[in-house]
Amino acid sequence: MSVENYDIVGGGLVDLKSYADQRPNVTIKSTNITRVAHRVPMEKRWETNGHKSGILWLTGLSGSGKSTLAFALEQNLHRLGYQVYVLDGDNMRHGLCADLGFSPEDRAENIRRVGEVAGVFARAGMLVITAFISPYRDDRRNVRKMEPEMFHEVYVKASVDVCEQRDPKGLYKKAREGQIKEFTGISAPYEEPLSAELVVDTASNSFEDCLVCLMDYVEQKFGMAPVREGSTKVRSVAVAATATTPAD
Amino acid sequence: MSVENYDIVGGGLVDLKSYADQRPNVTIKSTNITRVAHRVPMEKRWETNGHKSGILWLTGLSGSGKSTLAFALEQNLHRLGYQVYVLDGDNMRHGLCADLGFSPEDRAENIRRVGEVAGVFARAGMLVITAFISPYRDDRRNVRKMEPEMFHEVYVKASVDVCEQRDPKGLYKKAREGQIKEFTGISAPYEEPLSAELVVDTASNSFEDCLVCLMDYVEQKFGMAPVREGSTKVRSVAVAATATTPAD
Repeated sequence: MSVENYDIVGGGLVDLKSYADQRPNVTIKSTNITRVAHRVPMEKRWETNGHKSGILWLTGLSGSGKSTLAFALEQNLHRLGYQVYVLDGDNMRHGLCADLGFSPEDRAENIRRVGEVAGVFARAGMLVITAFISPYRDDRRNVRKMEPEMFHEVYVKASVDVCEQRDPKGLYKKAREGQIKEFTGISAPYEEPLSAELVVDTASNSFEDCLVCLMDYVEQKFGMAPVREGSTKVRSVAVAATATTPAD
Repeated sequence: MSVENYDIVGGGLVDLKSYADQRPNVTIKSTNITRVAHRVPMEKRWETNGHKSGILWLTGLSGSGKSTLAFALEQNLHRLGYQVYVLDGDNMRHGLCADLGFSPEDRAENIRRVGEVAGVFARAGMLVITAFISPYRDDRRNVRKMEPEMFHEVYVKASVDVCEQRDPKGLYKKAREGQIKEFTGISAPYEEPLSAELVVDTASNSFEDCLVCLMDYVEQKFGMAPVREGSTKVRSVAVAATATTPAD
């Protein structure tokens, strides 16, 4: 689960219309630099790995189930032989994004960096799963623009009511009590995806069904013939093995 | 080859003693975040991939051969079945570090981010090769601190004279003519590694010998039994296949 909950984005409004766009696309500062081509083309990596690479961008409210689904998916896909890795909000805040706070600019920069890193992973042949609230359409759109062919937006959907009932970290309670300001879904906006490649409704479906849905999507979009053959059986086992995991 | 050549680090001195340290370690700005454990341990990834993961940090002057060696090594290791990827200065300046210029702070931040990304790649089970001039010991030391067990410093050694004679991009010429200020090795410092894990002397050895030296190091440090068996023959072929590549 991400910590973007703590963002301070402005004076108490719950949409972005009144905010100036402080998140322009970054222009390259360096001069005299040229992209260097790798001698191992990405498609060659796909052949070796037995699957295509790309970015599975999970977005949704705190408590919607993003991280839990991401880590379970990673485990299942690893068992199937996928080169797969989860980039998760909290972990990135400890490292690459440790210098960033929660101002609108910092948040946009956080998502930009994660998008860039996800792109590098994808070009390195991996299927990268990101688990960030990433509440703003503009930020997500900017990431999509970096690698449009490889970006798959997955809306992990659950209403504020549902997430608040789950409240796995007690953050909604704190937000209601005013201990956390500008909490996404309560006092800060979440802009639902308008055309996500996949919607996983965790309010109406069991965790296991959501996981199967994601597995099917991955096999359909990233699978290559040698991996898909007979993979259904293996997958059922993998899913069964995580069936005891509680949702977020 | 990296573009750190263009750095402006101060008033014409060629060592760092007189500079205030503008490159403190980053402290984490976010609160209430916890590192989330992956369900696939790194060691499990090593088993699957057949080799250990880590960071091979190539440092050296512009023209020393870092990028050429890195990309050739990547190609050879990929052929051997390694999960391997090169992070290269120019490519990073186009993406993750596009917002950074060449001030001392920006340069340190550039190396910090690359170090963090290299760490994520290593934790994802990959052998990551970085090709950056990274002239300052402090910056390299800070990266080493992030993942001390997985960090391998490789000094790609060639004197300024040798690199200037090669001058593959005409940058030394421009630096001598004053068109590029604070050029590493000419008008900006390069701090040689004091205890690099490996020194590859590209001035005294052929490109092919340097590559073999790197391949041997990788097999020794990152290889696991199933990969090492019979790999010598494959390796010779791989090396032979790149024998026509000119150095840097």
